[in-house]
Amino acid sequence: MKIGLIGLGKMGMNLALNMQENGHHPVGTDLSATNLTTAKTNGLATATDLTNLLAQLPTPRTIWLMIPAGAPTAHVIDQLATTLQAGDVVLDGGNSFYKDSIAHAKILAAQGIHFLDVGTSGGQAGARHQGNFMIGGNPAVFKTVEPLFKAISAPDGYLYTGPVGSGHYLKMVHNGIEYGMMASIGEGFDVLQHSPYNYDNAAVAKVWNNGSVIRSWLMGLAEDAFNDDANLDTIKGVMHSSGEGRWTLDTALDQQVATPVIAMALMMRYRSLSDDTFTGKVVAALRNEFGGHAVDPK
Amino acid sequence: MKIGLIGLGKMGMNLALNMQENGHHPVGTDLSATNLTTAKTNGLATATDLTNLLAQLPTPRTIWLMIPAGAPTAHVIDQLATTLQAGDVVLDGGNSFYKDSIAHAKILAAQGIHFLDVGTSGGQAGARHQGNFMIGGNPAVFKTVEPLFKAISAPDGYLYTGPVGSGHYLKMVHNGIEYGMMASIGEGFDVLQHSPYNYDNAAVAKVWNNGSVIRSWLMGLAEDAFNDDANLDTIKGVMHSSGEGRWTLDTALDQQVATPVIAMALMMRYRSLSDDTFTGKVVAALRNEFGGHAVDPK
Repeated sequence: MKIGLIGLGKMGMNLALNMQENGHHPVGTDLSATNLTTAKTNGLATATDLTNLLAQLPTPRTIWLMIPAGAPTAHVIDQLATTLQAGDVVLDGGNSFYKDSIAHAKILAAQGIHFLDVGTSGGQAGARHQGNFMIGGNPAVFKTVEPLFKAISAPDGYLYTGPVGSGHYLKMVHNGIEYGMMASIGEGFDVLQHSPYNYDNAAVAKVWNNGSVIRSWLMGLAEDAFNDDANLDTIKGVMHSSGEGRWTLDTALDQQVATPVIAMALMMRYRSLSDDTFTGKVVAALRNEFGGHAVDPK
Repeated sequence: MKIGLIGLGKMGMNLALNMQENGHHPVGTDLSATNLTTAKTNGLATATDLTNLLAQLPTPRTIWLMIPAGAPTAHVIDQLATTLQAGDVVLDGGNSFYKDSIAHAKILAAQGIHFLDVGTSGGQAGARHQGNFMIGGNPAVFKTVEPLFKAISAPDGYLYTGPVGSGHYLKMVHNGIEYGMMASIGEGFDVLQHSPYNYDNAAVAKVWNNGSVIRSWLMGLAEDAFNDDANLDTIKGVMHSSGEGRWTLDTALDQQVATPVIAMALMMRYRSLSDDTFTGKVVAALRNEFGGHAVDPK
């Protein structure tokens, strides 16, 4: 099928190539001229802007968004609500918060436009080959685009998850789990790094990824990273985040579900953003006040 | 090679079958008559006791321990120190604390007996087929038994890790990571269980295990568990533990390495052991004292 793909960044570009390689016909657009040029170089059909994109698509149209969550996605949804026709289908493959997706579905539904929220996993590699997708929305609408998911997913790598929002909710929780798994792996290697032994981190990740209980795609990525830089000397341990871990925790708090491991993984990401903390200053000052314990001057 | 295998429990029995299937000749012994009978039924050679076992092995002997860590292992090490000969090799494939393994190596070395500490991963399935092993000790001694590891391991599934203790240290940290990964997966499914949607847990685990970032052997086990019991209605959420998570945390504390995610995973295992806590009673009583907040009577 012909698909309008809005967003040709790291994920969108790979996804377009995946679609094209597997018998579908993406037409991509992006605000960045560089990305458009790269897409053309990659042999992809492109559109200069939304109007041009819509003109190239048969009706009912299928539009896949692969752009940053939040304001950028909300802006494009508003644009689509006024330019698409009843019966068109919008898929949001980005990492939108599931409550935003429910709101977006309502905005579009008011115009008769269908909406599916698509949680996308597998990283850039998965976007390119055998991706992973969790899809919420009207089941009949899902059926119309299921051949696309079958074509671009890993075997058994897509799931219709239920009503609108359920795809992005599931992807949110997936990322919460990912935060905890990654923090566990990181902490384990930190204990190895402080051991009385001299472990070869890449060799450890490799053996752990071949038959052990903790074998996982993430452990394979750790092996790759350690092969590039045995002790990660060239990077800082600053852990940025882009929302889903926070939303998982927000949701757990709303439901009063105890998720201390995921919460701690998130908090340690925040801790990593600063070289120093005001918490630390306060604690050091208090120890000094009551016990005369030494403080480290700035 | 002919190997004396002490311990024919869940792990030892599978390991013996693995060895035998892959061209080696285990002779097993166990304190349990039932285990010995099962071993015979499984076509394994057995010995009635340690004396009988040693009599069946050519010198230098190779003895693999697959018994509970702590007192049972220490007891057998003491027995072996007085019954083996110089040049014999003892491998401890159990989950011994690495400092105990260093002590065991010394006890045996005083008699000229070699010792290798073998961290074993992969669960019962791995013991049976394509296991995972992390081996510490004298590298020349390791070379003499390497063909055994090659035969029973997954491809690339064994690693010589360095001096004595390094195998069990690495296995300890592996299990610490496992605690955090398992807790993350558990918490994630708990957030799903409290969602506004009706997810099929087995279908979720399956899709997550096919192309997603969190695909892992543990996620596959989750799929199996949910296929057996869709919402785990038949079991309690009591999480026992057998040492390695605690030792990972002890080691992190010794080295002043922050491992809050693994620590929290361990603490939540402890929390799960009781239906109620004294902490909870104290907090409830204090809220009642200062604010007249309701307490739940017992």
